[in-house]
Parts: sequence; structure tokens; C-alpha cells
Amino acid sequence: MIKTSQRGLLMPSSPIRKLVPFAEAAKRKGIHVHHLNIGQPDIETPAVCLDAVRNSHFKILEYSHSAGNESYRKKLVTYYERNNIHVTKDEIIVTTGGSEAILFGFMACLDPGDEVIIPEPFYANYNGFAVQAGVTVIPIKSSIEDGFSLPPIEEFEKAISPKTKAIVVCNPNNPTGYLYSAEEMNILKEIVIKHQLFLFADEAYREFCYQGTHVSAMHLNGAENHVILMDTISKRYSACGGRIGAFVTKNKDVLNIAMKFAQARLSPPYYAQLLGEAAVDLPENYFDTTKAEYLLRRNTLVARLNEIEGVFCPNPGGAFYAMARLPIDDSDLFCQWLLESFSHNNQTIMLAPATGFYSTEGLGKDEVRLAYVLNVEAIHQAMDCLEEALKQYPRRS
Amino acid sequence: MIKTSQRGLLMPSSPIRKLVPFAEAAKRKGIHVHHLNIGQPDIETPAVCLDAVRNSHFKILEYSHSAGNESYRKKLVTYYERNNIHVTKDEIIVTTGGSEAILFGFMACLDPGDEVIIPEPFYANYNGFAVQAGVTVIPIKSSIEDGFSLPPIEEFEKAISPKTKAIVVCNPNNPTGYLYSAEEMNILKEIVIKHQLFLFADEAYREFCYQGTHVSAMHLNGAENHVILMDTISKRYSACGGRIGAFVTKNKDVLNIAMKFAQARLSPPYYAQLLGEAAVDLPENYFDTTKAEYLLRRNTLVARLNEIEGVFCPNPGGAFYAMARLPIDDSDLFCQWLLESFSHNNQTIMLAPATGFYSTEGLGKDEVRLAYVLNVEAIHQAMDCLEEALKQYPRRS
Repeated sequence: MIKTSQRGLLMPSSPIRKLVPFAEAAKRKGIHVHHLNIGQPDIETPAVCLDAVRNSHFKILEYSHSAGNESYRKKLVTYYERNNIHVTKDEIIVTTGGSEAILFGFMACLDPGDEVIIPEPFYANYNGFAVQAGVTVIPIKSSIEDGFSLPPIEEFEKAISPKTKAIVVCNPNNPTGYLYSAEEMNILKEIVIKHQLFLFADEAYREFCYQGTHVSAMHLNGAENHVILMDTISKRYSACGGRIGAFVTKNKDVLNIAMKFAQARLSPPYYAQLLGEAAVDLPENYFDTTKAEYLLRRNTLVARLNEIEGVFCPNPGGAFYAMARLPIDDSDLFCQWLLESFSHNNQTIMLAPATGFYSTEGLGKDEVRLAYVLNVEAIHQAMDCLEEALKQYPRRS
Repeated sequence: MIKTSQRGLLMPSSPIRKLVPFAEAAKRKGIHVHHLNIGQPDIETPAVCLDAVRNSHFKILEYSHSAGNESYRKKLVTYYERNNIHVTKDEIIVTTGGSEAILFGFMACLDPGDEVIIPEPFYANYNGFAVQAGVTVIPIKSSIEDGFSLPPIEEFEKAISPKTKAIVVCNPNNPTGYLYSAEEMNILKEIVIKHQLFLFADEAYREFCYQGTHVSAMHLNGAENHVILMDTISKRYSACGGRIGAFVTKNKDVLNIAMKFAQARLSPPYYAQLLGEAAVDLPENYFDTTKAEYLLRRNTLVARLNEIEGVFCPNPGGAFYAMARLPIDDSDLFCQWLLESFSHNNQTIMLAPATGFYSTEGLGKDEVRLAYVLNVEAIHQAMDCLEEALKQYPRRS
């Protein structure tokens, strides 16, 4: 019998995917499903960015440079400069989405058997990239009571072994929406310098901070050789389908090695680099409108959640996600029940069970992630559904 | 000291990359460099395909389905049907270039320590994907005297060990241009069935066959569970920068596992799926013009090469590459010398040293790969250069 790889079997499935058939069945019954389960913004991609692609006039769709078009990397330098991140075009490798930047980081810095520490709950696909790289994820629990702030330094010290090579920080965080403070970022800096670790910084949601300012890992003076920025334009400009991200570091050895991975896959996608290039020239107030909209949604969502009996939702400082604790015993079953057995005014909601974001078995069973990628009216309707659902749910705890 | 991964150090550099600074220096001296070193076609991307992107009118550039847009996969079914390959839309995963299809195949079917057999010379980037997957490439030598035909079955039998899990066949071949016959494909079928191996079929150049017909690995009745097709639109429609390929198999287990890798990276690029969709509707005679052009170039190139004293070039049956044996002792040094120390009528040529395509140390030192991606006039000028260069080359053997 011909067999697939063990690695393939270990590879995790998308935590939301198993719910998709139930959502489809609900829709077939004529029920409107409010999708709070995914990070696909409903914000329009800036027209000027889409136009940059529409107005392209080349005759051959050639490979771009393996590191991305030079013209785009030069633009990115100015973008980062505006964010007080000082890099040259040669310290940037344009990647196929943030996903590829994460994969390059894992592949270039970690060997099979190495360990990477990640505060949990965390972005579920880190598990997938870890499996591809043969790396073990060591979770450290952050807790909903503390709003998912950085676990204490002692927890890191306890988790560090001779096999530990890196820490991943997603800031602002997906799935918690937590925005790390300057103090917390400095704690991470101390740890990575003391233990000679890499700091992988996923800053996909940099622009979406609602209180306090964003402290990039690239701002940590003295940690330049440790920090790898894994970036993407997906959320920033609502351009998820473009598949354009960036791998940014000042560590020359890492950069040279990442370039070998970049060369092996020849080039990042051409079209969305045009889009990304145009995006850097958007007016400075571009993010104001988007941020104001997300802020309104966050405030609506969090207020509504905390008004429901037995529900607790810490106020997230960034991104467009919130984690809520519900009076339920099994978030997977609850999310399925919402789609399979519940409706309110012919509507229901699709949520992401938090179990998929925890690495430690058993955690997240009473939590769900909500992406506020719907407008305020839809959020109100979705919260009406949730409120009613929790009254009706037979397994309420 | 913070250290990169061993895997990263093992990762091969692009075999051509080290020549780039010499090409740039030659250009700065005002010398025209004929690029026969890369597989970037000069054929225009069909305007109707580029228009499909230019005329796109969505307002949000959303993720596509992780397996690719359903509308595109349905179109691909008809494309494959025309090539006598019978698959459903659910047996296709749209990938980020052929590169990602190869990586998915290695990751889904092979574990670290497993072996994959590849007739050499072979596409250099297979090495890079093997390093990423922790897999060992076992080369079997095909020889220029036989025009790089499939090595005898005994050579495969000798190379197969308990760790062998797959064979890679690139047909028509890059770098040799060799087109495998029905008999050879059947030999591969027998081997993979007898030894329960996967057959990874890279058919990027399917349309470019100049004598005989293309036998796809997907045509091998009885090997359905073994065959994984790794495909791309890059060369077919001169759309290399789009980064759209396909992973196609009838093996359900492999498909399910590859989908987990596809989900981890969320989605393939959106734009070039529109291009690929339009390409399927190109008139049936679209490839006739392109093929006629490549055929003329091949005939010109091969004839000119074989007219040069001491040069031997077998006539390649497909793709747009030719491998030639030259009267030289070190193809890396020769290719560098061409750029650094030679010019003829203020022109020179950039070739790919064949050493980069062999896995066995020492092979390919008297061979180069030539990509006939230039028009006939440029090919004549390039061959004038080569002829003169071989007269002048001080290390001629």
C-alpha cells in the first residue's frame, strides 16, 4: 500500500473547516449566517490600488526578482520609514503572503527537533508551518482574565530548553486582539538576547491599534540580529487575495539563507506587487477611516458581549478580533449547534471555536473568537443571535 | 551567537545567481548579453489573458478558496480533458506556481530521511524543495550520448532502497528538452507499481513537443494512486509572474493531506487565476504559432551548435531547452569567462553551467544548458559569439 507522509498526517486541519458543511446546510435552509469566524475584511480594497493592476500595460507577465520587484521594495522602505522602522530595500524579501514569510523564518532559523515558544492562544496556522519545518511548538498560556497580556517572564524561563531557538509574537494579536505594550516588548527583547533566540514578529495588523501605540519588534534597539518581521498587506489594505507579504530582517545570515528559499520558488506574485506599490502612496489619513470603522465595531461588539449574562470579553487593543468566554462546556459543539440547530429571526452566527487556537489540549473549550469584519448593524443582529442562542443552548454550563 | 538552521546552510543557491554580477559588469561595459540562461520566455502573454485581469471589477481582493477558485478549477477540468486527462475539480488544488505543487508533493508524500529518485541532470530547484522537506535526492545518470533518454530499468532497481518513496519525472524535460516516449512512461509505471512509489510528474512544458505526442503520467492506466501531476501556467501561456500552478492527483489520501498544506497558506494568488481562467478559452490553434516559433528556434540552435567543432547537442523533442557538450573542462569557469573576459561584435552570451543540474559531484563540467527564449536572429548572433568564444577560450580541452 502506498502511503502518505507522517508529516502529512501530523499536519493540522483548519479548525474552522469542519464547520463549513454545517454553515452550508444552514444557508440551504434559507438561514442567514453572520460570518464572524474569519479574518476576511469587508472593507473595500482602495480603488487606486485595484486600478494600479487594472492599468498595467506590460505585454509579458514575467517573473519578478526573487526578492520582489526592486521598485516595490524601494516603496516599502518609505512605508517602513513612516512606521519608524529603518530598513534598506536589500533587507526586505517580498513573500507570497505573510504565510510564506512565516515559513521562510521557520525554515531558515529552525531545524527539525528545535522548539519555538508561542504564547497561546495563537494563530492556528503557526502549527502547520511548524509541522512543515519539523519544529515543536511550546505554548505558554496567556489568560483571558488578564486580557491575554504577555505571560510573566518566569513562564518563558521555565519553557526555555537547549532546543529553544525562537519566540513568536503576533502584535496586535490574532486571535486575541491584544496589543503588546512597550514594557512587554522590552521583556521579549531581554529574553531573546539573554538566551540568544530569534524573535519572529507577525505584525499583520500593525495599523489597527485603538489605544496606545504599536511597538514593532523592529524598534527594539540592540535586538537587530534577533528580530525577523513577518509582514503582509492582506489586512492592511484589505488585499488578502493578492498574496503579498514581506520577510524583513537586519540579520545578514538569515537574509542570505531566506534568499535561497526565495530563489527556489523563483518569484512572488507579480500583480499584487503593483497593488502594494500603489498602496504606499495612499493619503496619510487612509487608515483613519478604516480604524474609526473598526473601533466602532469593536466597541459595539465588546459592549454587547459583556451585556450577555455569563459572557466575558476583555477589550482588545488592536487587530479586528475579540476572544470571549461563554457559559458553554465545548466551543466546538456550541459553534456546530449554532449552525445546525439554531436560528433567530431566520439568522444565525458562525464563530471560531477557541480550541483551534490553543496548543494545550483542553484549553479554549469555553471560549470563541469573533472577527469584527461586519458592519455595526450586522454585529447587532449577530449579538441578538448569540444572546438568544445562549438562552436556548441545552448544554449551557 | 545566534545561528541560522543547518537546513538553511544545506539549501542550495541558484546555480546561475553567482554569474549575475558578471553579466551586470559586462552590461556596464556596454556589451550586449544574449540571455540563454533562463526559462523566461520572450513570447507575449496572450492579450486576452492580460485583459481578464485588467477588466476585473471586484471591489475587495478577497482570499480565494484554498484549493483555488471553483470557477477556475472547473475550467481546468476542460483543459485537462482536452489533453485526455480526466479529473474532477475536486482533484485539483490550484497552487502558487508549479513550485508550490512540487513542495506540496514532497511534504505530503515524503518524510525526512526518505529518498526520491530523479534522473539527472534535473531541474535544480528540486534540490531546494528536497532540503525543505528533509528528503534525500538519489540521482540516476541519463547521458548526453543517448539524448538524455530514460536510464535503463536496472539503474532504477539498483537505486531503490527501503527508503525510496518516489520518482520525479519532468516531461518534456528541463534542462534536457527530452520528451519521454510511451514506452519509457510505461517503464516508470511498472517501477512505481512494483515498488509502491509515488510518481511526481512535472509537466510544465506539456504543450511544447516537437516530435511525437506527449504522454502524461496521468495517462498511465492503473497508476492512478501513484501519480501526482505538478503543473503550471508559467510557460504554457508565458505567464511566469502570475505564480499559478496546479497539484493534481486521483489519490484521495494525498489530496486530503495536500489540502491541509493549502489551507495553512490560506489561498493561491487571486489575479492570475483570472488570467488562467481566460487562457483555457484561447482558440485551439493558440499553441500552433508558439510551437512553430519554438521549433524554428530549436532547429536553428541545434544546427548551429552541431556545426561548431567539438560541440555536440542532441536534438531535444520538447520544452525550450537544449543541453550541449562543449570542448571545455569547467562549465562554471567558461560561463564566467564569457561574461567577464569575452565579447564578439560587442556581444556575449550568458549560459547556464550544467553542473547545477547534476546532483553527482563532477558531472556536467563539459555541458551547458541553453534556453531558446530568444528570436532566431538573436540565436544566430549568440551562436556566432559561442563559435568565436570557443576559438579564443584559453582553457579549451
